[in-house]
Amino acid sequence: MQIDAVDFFYLSMPVVTLEADGSQDALLVRVSAGGFSGFGECEAAPLPSIAAFVCPMSHGACQPVSASVLGRRLDSPADIAAIAADVAYNSMDVLQAAHTFSGIEMALWDILGQARGEPVWKLLGYRASYPKTPYASLLFGDTPQQTLARGRDAMRRGFRAAKFGWGPIGRGSVQQDADHFVAAREGLGADGILLVDVGQIFVDDVERAAQRLDALELARAVWLEEPFHASALEEYGALAARCQGVRLAGGEGAHNAAMARHLIDYGRVGFVQIDCGRIGGIGPAKQVADYAVARGVTYVNHTFTSHLALSASMQPFAGLADHAICEFPAAPKALAVELTRNHLAPDANGQVCAPDAPGLGMHIDAQAVRRYQVAVDIRVAGKTLYTSPVFSP
Amino acid sequence: MQIDAVDFFYLSMPVVTLEADGSQDALLVRVSAGGFSGFGECEAAPLPSIAAFVCPMSHGACQPVSASVLGRRLDSPADIAAIAADVAYNSMDVLQAAHTFSGIEMALWDILGQARGEPVWKLLGYRASYPKTPYASLLFGDTPQQTLARGRDAMRRGFRAAKFGWGPIGRGSVQQDADHFVAAREGLGADGILLVDVGQIFVDDVERAAQRLDALELARAVWLEEPFHASALEEYGALAARCQGVRLAGGEGAHNAAMARHLIDYGRVGFVQIDCGRIGGIGPAKQVADYAVARGVTYVNHTFTSHLALSASMQPFAGLADHAICEFPAAPKALAVELTRNHLAPDANGQVCAPDAPGLGMHIDAQAVRRYQVAVDIRVAGKTLYTSPVFSP
Repeated sequence: MQIDAVDFFYLSMPVVTLEADGSQDALLVRVSAGGFSGFGECEAAPLPSIAAFVCPMSHGACQPVSASVLGRRLDSPADIAAIAADVAYNSMDVLQAAHTFSGIEMALWDILGQARGEPVWKLLGYRASYPKTPYASLLFGDTPQQTLARGRDAMRRGFRAAKFGWGPIGRGSVQQDADHFVAAREGLGADGILLVDVGQIFVDDVERAAQRLDALELARAVWLEEPFHASALEEYGALAARCQGVRLAGGEGAHNAAMARHLIDYGRVGFVQIDCGRIGGIGPAKQVADYAVARGVTYVNHTFTSHLALSASMQPFAGLADHAICEFPAAPKALAVELTRNHLAPDANGQVCAPDAPGLGMHIDAQAVRRYQVAVDIRVAGKTLYTSPVFSP
Repeated sequence: MQIDAVDFFYLSMPVVTLEADGSQDALLVRVSAGGFSGFGECEAAPLPSIAAFVCPMSHGACQPVSASVLGRRLDSPADIAAIAADVAYNSMDVLQAAHTFSGIEMALWDILGQARGEPVWKLLGYRASYPKTPYASLLFGDTPQQTLARGRDAMRRGFRAAKFGWGPIGRGSVQQDADHFVAAREGLGADGILLVDVGQIFVDDVERAAQRLDALELARAVWLEEPFHASALEEYGALAARCQGVRLAGGEGAHNAAMARHLIDYGRVGFVQIDCGRIGGIGPAKQVADYAVARGVTYVNHTFTSHLALSASMQPFAGLADHAICEFPAAPKALAVELTRNHLAPDANGQVCAPDAPGLGMHIDAQAVRRYQVAVDIRVAGKTLYTSPVFSP
């Protein structure tokens, strides 16, 4: 097969708010090769990501992502890796390139799986797709009462695990945060798996993060996610050394596999969370999963958008029976729900699996794409470099 | 002062080639505040960088850079640091944001320096701007004869140091590379300072890089720059352990100060090379300079574009007398030369200084901006988010 075309569809809710909810817009990627259409999704700012694909070349090491993708052969996983290596090299000075390529790379796996009639996780070398316990990704409430109510609601909906994130944590007192942790535990009940995500709020301040540890231990939080910015390896390591039961989690900011490895080795996280829509796709995520296994760290997907992104993000650890927790967007915006015609629904045990279907196994809803598509035109030096394509099924 | 406006000017040579020459285009930034115009330059792909400033918000942690800059107070270095922290937080999921903000941040320092009538290096706490020995940044020739001729030419032009980069190195045999290193040494003569830059060609292959060490030692290269990709910390560290006289150099790919620190601590580089047009500007670069001093590592600027970028990149280590080498674009394209009306010319000893003038001390040539400006229009959902501004002096 040859890669004939790459099309980007910028979708958005009519209103986008400051809420830390990544499902308010989406950048869908369609790759055409060998008569197949493969799909992927960049978990990224759509406009800069499109620009990184179509921009004029600045010099040999600052080429648009398109230069390393269009027209390339696609017959094996090795071809995908070769394209990825060329993007990394030819676009080394285009910072956005990793985010742009992430959605493309997923689509390449999707095509390869369709062509071979096999799910992507089989192409990655796994023999089975094990069920995972999904956790509901929730935001902390403005008040502990709201946090409690959200936890109860998630349990009522059948979740056995929930992650509370962002909101007021780290913005008020240690006691106020402790009240939210207590409320979250109460909302989930004694047996619920409680995860906490503070969204880099402590930046690089180990002491401020450490002040919350006692309350997190008391609430029996399994992990504390992203206490610091993505590159704060020493601070992760210092905080990890002060944890008792709770483990650190992080990795969604990694835009290559090496960054995730460093978070494991230097940052001492217990859970490494990879977003295939940012790290460069499924291939580098699988490398991280292999590394996590070797280092005794648990791999978890990071997914806050559609079930296309969810399927892609589950492939790299689908075959790891012991890495059993998965992030599951519990309250996504309508566009993220409607983007795919099928969904990864929890089974009778409340668990979800990467689909046992060719490629990523997800079907795009053409009407949803048209309904949420944002018109974009980019003209440089009198030439149209990008204009929103029409989605036809 | 209040930040009233930020304008981006995308400049380009009429023809851009695959050559690893970063001076073929430029992204000039003008910030207006308090009646002053400050200038900076992103060392980055112009179109994605502009897009990261103007893009619609995706969610609270994926806001355009503009959201954290426009309308902000600018009265002190602390104000610049506060804006930088907000960009890092509010745009944490916009990968390109660091490159976009780098040029803005330089311009903020330029304005503050103009308002106080002081050079930026004084605002950074330095008492003097020490002369540096500039090295000519050259590309290896296609043949050793060409490499030799380029070295001779640099010496004839008065340089006492030269860096040869990219070209055929790592693409042929070990012996072919050795022939280029010998030729480079011969071109510079026995006393010339020889630096070698291989532009990430070995990706993460320590053995292939190590095979070149003997020839580099024999040619008395002071450093081997960027043997691996920017995140290959373990590989840097492994190669550093096998070096005798030659030291490793790297850091131009760092897009925050932590990444540069990791290259020092884990990658064991002897020289840390910072591009203020990528790392987030002058503030984080100064943090790296302080850290380098503490760790016994030599700080060097990375500059391959205009003398505006050169002035900005010299500020963070202007006051460090012992950090005496500086990168100096030896054969930039016409736009990089013409962009500024004044230039940092070597003195009678062949040395250059960060200017002793308010701000960055550089004056933009309005006609050059108009001559090389590329017209860009970005429309999203029927609204023009960016159209190339007219430069009026």
